[in-house]
Amino acid sequence: MRRLLYRYRPGTPRMTSGGSTVEGSGKKISTRDVVDMESIKTIFYEEPELKDPILIEGLPGVGNVGKLAAEHLLDQIEAVKMADIYSKHFPPQVVVDDDGVSNLVNNELYYSKGEGGRPDLIMLLGDYQGLTPEGQYELSDHVLQVAIKFGAKMVFTLGGYGIGKMVEEPRVLGAATDIELVEEMKEKGVVFSRGEPGSGIVGASGLLLGLGKVYGIKAVCLMGETSGYFVDPKGAEAVLRVLAEILNVEIDFSDLEDKAEQIDMITSKLKEIENPQEPKREDLGYIG
Amino acid sequence: MRRLLYRYRPGTPRMTSGGSTVEGSGKKISTRDVVDMESIKTIFYEEPELKDPILIEGLPGVGNVGKLAAEHLLDQIEAVKMADIYSKHFPPQVVVDDDGVSNLVNNELYYSKGEGGRPDLIMLLGDYQGLTPEGQYELSDHVLQVAIKFGAKMVFTLGGYGIGKMVEEPRVLGAATDIELVEEMKEKGVVFSRGEPGSGIVGASGLLLGLGKVYGIKAVCLMGETSGYFVDPKGAEAVLRVLAEILNVEIDFSDLEDKAEQIDMITSKLKEIENPQEPKREDLGYIG
Amino acid sequence: MRRLLYRYRPGTPRMTSGGSTVEGSGKKISTRDVVDMESIKTIFYEEPELKDPILIEGLPGVGNVGKLAAEHLLDQIEAVKMADIYSKHFPPQVVVDDDGVSNLVNNELYYSKGEGGRPDLIMLLGDYQGLTPEGQYELSDHVLQVAIKFGAKMVFTLGGYGIGKMVEEPRVLGAATDIELVEEMKEKGVVFSRGEPGSGIVGASGLLLGLGKVYGIKAVCLMGETSGYFVDPKGAEAVLRVLAEILNVEIDFSDLEDKAEQIDMITSKLKEIENPQEPKREDLGYIG
Amino acid sequence: MRRLLYRYRPGTPRMTSGGSTVEGSGKKISTRDVVDMESIKTIFYEEPELKDPILIEGLPGVGNVGKLAAEHLLDQIEAVKMADIYSKHFPPQVVVDDDGVSNLVNNELYYSKGEGGRPDLIMLLGDYQGLTPEGQYELSDHVLQVAIKFGAKMVFTLGGYGIGKMVEEPRVLGAATDIELVEEMKEKGVVFSRGEPGSGIVGASGLLLGLGKVYGIKAVCLMGETSGYFVDPKGAEAVLRVLAEILNVEIDFSDLEDKAEQIDMITSKLKEIENPQEPKREDLGYIG
Repeated sequence: MRRLLYRYRPGTPRMTSGGSTVEGSGKKISTRDVVDMESIKTIFYEEPELKDPILIEGLPGVGNVGKLAAEHLLDQIEAVKMADIYSKHFPPQVVVDDDGVSNLVNNELYYSKGEGGRPDLIMLLGDYQGLTPEGQYELSDHVLQVAIKFGAKMVFTLGGYGIGKMVEEPRVLGAATDIELVEEMKEKGVVFSRGEPGSGIVGASGLLLGLGKVYGIKAVCLMGETSGYFVDPKGAEAVLRVLAEILNVEIDFSDLEDKAEQIDMITSKLKEIENPQEPKREDLGYIG
Repeated sequence: MRRLLYRYRPGTPRMTSGGSTVEGSGKKISTRDVVDMESIKTIFYEEPELKDPILIEGLPGVGNVGKLAAEHLLDQIEAVKMADIYSKHFPPQVVVDDDGVSNLVNNELYYSKGEGGRPDLIMLLGDYQGLTPEGQYELSDHVLQVAIKFGAKMVFTLGGYGIGKMVEEPRVLGAATDIELVEEMKEKGVVFSRGEPGSGIVGASGLLLGLGKVYGIKAVCLMGETSGYFVDPKGAEAVLRVLAEILNVEIDFSDLEDKAEQIDMITSKLKEIENPQEPKREDLGYIG
Repeated sequence: MRRLLYRYRPGTPRMTSGGSTVEGSGKKISTRDVVDMESIKTIFYEEPELKDPILIEGLPGVGNVGKLAAEHLLDQIEAVKMADIYSKHFPPQVVVDDDGVSNLVNNELYYSKGEGGRPDLIMLLGDYQGLTPEGQYELSDHVLQVAIKFGAKMVFTLGGYGIGKMVEEPRVLGAATDIELVEEMKEKGVVFSRGEPGSGIVGASGLLLGLGKVYGIKAVCLMGETSGYFVDPKGAEAVLRVLAEILNVEIDFSDLEDKAEQIDMITSKLKEIENPQEPKREDLGYIG
Repeated sequence: MRRLLYRYRPGTPRMTSGGSTVEGSGKKISTRDVVDMESIKTIFYEEPELKDPILIEGLPGVGNVGKLAAEHLLDQIEAVKMADIYSKHFPPQVVVDDDGVSNLVNNELYYSKGEGGRPDLIMLLGDYQGLTPEGQYELSDHVLQVAIKFGAKMVFTLGGYGIGKMVEEPRVLGAATDIELVEEMKEKGVVFSRGEPGSGIVGASGLLLGLGKVYGIKAVCLMGETSGYFVDPKGAEAVLRVLAEILNVEIDFSDLEDKAEQIDMITSKLKEIENPQEPKREDLGYIG
């Protein structure tokens, strides 16, 4: 066994030290049965039996409306973590929690058995979407295939619709995979407004509709109006109120309302800074 | 079955709650036979018997000349939707129509049986091209393979040739896969001008020629002169007039001509705004 | 055998000369059993028997703290080059050494048999990380698989933690794959500070933790505080002092200390240039 | 057979017309045995018997020195086109020649039987390199595999070395896969200068050395000094003079010298424009 004793030579790139050995190595190439990393690596902790589960997506987006709505729903029902989704399409990064424990950037799947007339649910949550268009396609396609294997025939994607100005009573705009579904949603108070969203729907909230339709799955996107300038619990509440009625589930909105108030306070403070009260005319009256 | 009851802990990233369960999961990895998404997913609604069909491409490009020409031709003949082409090379997006119905970004294939001396046609239409060079190669190669399976031996790609200024009588420039084809096209009034296009032809209009030649398919690109500043129905008309004669098809151009007039009106308005009429000398005469 | 005698025709792109021959070549396509390049090509010079080796990563990063620490450790122990890792995810480039000998950009694996209570080690060194997020995932996943095949059950990744200002006594911050490991590391003087690193850990130092956890491997990231403005031997020394105690290895730090002094001299010089000594009051006293 | 007669409805995105038919199409997905495009598509026109051929690369780079040198060599010897290399890593584009004939962007392989002591040659020429790092790796790896199949054991890559200023007598710098080769090249007048090229060698000229070494192939890069501001026939001549002696081939340099003179004329003209002759003192003497 040739032993190449390693010595660090300052000013000499390390690569050379190995250089001479690489020479005749054309025939020595070996990969030791190392396999390429899958694009998407999903780890299941449970594979529950579900009855016609509905897939609900709440990933980050405009005003994080969809994410807030889905997280609040998860808060309000009994849900079980069923899988972690890791992918080379996510940022190459770990998140470190307050205890110092690291976790690879991921998306998560939760399930919840239906009760009180509420159907079984599979929920897609996470702090990231794919970094590239290809990645977003692959991730949405992957999640759809998984949901279909668990029996899903229906999808709701939750998102925000940025209108560029603060809004008191956010509407919930919608898009759906077919016209019958559009009519159903109108009855639930979802607004289908010609030319809104004009630019279409981008990312997971759009792809799950688009690919779902290709797979023959019915899907609806619920978009809460939001300024788009802040994380917007108010838009999330609007979306969740519509979804709660559709899913037939009781929701306590106090948390979201508290968060909404906090945001309102911050934004009003910011307004003051930007346009301070002008001194009134008479204040200056004594001048000359 | 371990049930990990989910609780939302504010300030704690969700990922940690799953963390502890991930630990021992080295052996639990499973992908549930989920397959990777194909780069291109083509859905056929019909697989017609066609006789030496000619493939015609009209995707977006300079002045959308090719797209307008192809759509107008589709308008004028009896065509049947035969396939939808979806791809992770397109934007990760759905388009929402005025009814609120969503459709995944795609390209489309139509076919039309020949009549009155007009050959069978396969038409490639859509609102998008691949986002990346690789994607554009894969999409053009895919469409060519499909066309060849349906018996195609000839391709026409339609596009615009931007000249940076308004043009009254747009010429139709050409490029072809071999010199005999160049001569044929000259007889149809196509202009082959040394050094035009100097930069070559980019995107599907170019790749279908280039890859077609590799596959042994004859192909011609017809480029209508256009300013490149506006969607240009006039350039589209010029291209289509040439193509119509080649294909031996009657075309009513009134729609395109109406659109052209609308554009002319807009552009002339814009001109006025940019260079307003200068006040005449005498208007100022009274001054001093 | 048709001989197409090549002649250069100025002004004519070379491609045309081949053009006419490409025509009928649809059926002549051949790839002569040429295989696609693997994403990662690892060449092993030795495949040693190792007992529960610990994988140590020291690739470039903030202040090159991790790289300096790992290279210094390699300097201090008897290590043998075991493999070169080449990848299309690295820059498409060779490095040329002072003798004029070229070497393809790579990462390297070294191993060192344990002695005096020190465990067996596998060390990952190099001058580059993957250029893309996907590439970084694939490279870290590849190295982990290799390490696991050699029996590794534990990983230490070394890096810097940029704090944007010079630091006299750099702390060593940590992150780990589980809470027990966090506690162990605290006893070794590693600081686990709530919200540090706030942005998580990016690149190989993060991915080896994240993917390691997915594979059921324990992993720790040691981050030496550094300004991030300079290559920082002081941060490297801090990290290595902690690691040396954990690994139970004697280290002579004189080299690193010399380098640290050199850096200190440079930085203090730079300070002088930026804020020169102001002339003292009395110097100006004679004025008026 | 359902016939969906296509009608263009202005204001309605075309996609909807297909929408209703896509619905139930989950089971109708078909790809009609269409295969994905290979990353690299090489078409061989001849597969000659060659004796230890030497691969010579001359693709575009700094001052196009390597490309000019290789093209001039091709001009001077009897060479036969043996293959076209097409790839999705090249720009998605066709080039159109003066006759109006289109050709897909490519690289080309030529071969030349040795004569008069000159060895057999395989030459890699073209107007493009891969657009991405991955693409450059794959293309160089592909060409190397092909060359090896034809028996190549030696590679020369030709390039320019930009020094940022005009140079009268360009040196020819070198890099090689091993120290013996460095010594051989020194005897041929190649300069191996410590720290040149400092940044290593990027692109095909570098990768063929780097990957060649991995495959156990000897390789040399010859770099002609050039300003890097212009296409530089002078640098090309310097490189080719060295290569000609190594390959033992007679070369007529008159063409390259003519081109060099033309460039000199242009550059000197540009100099005049930038720093015009200043009026002499006395010209201004009469003033006051």
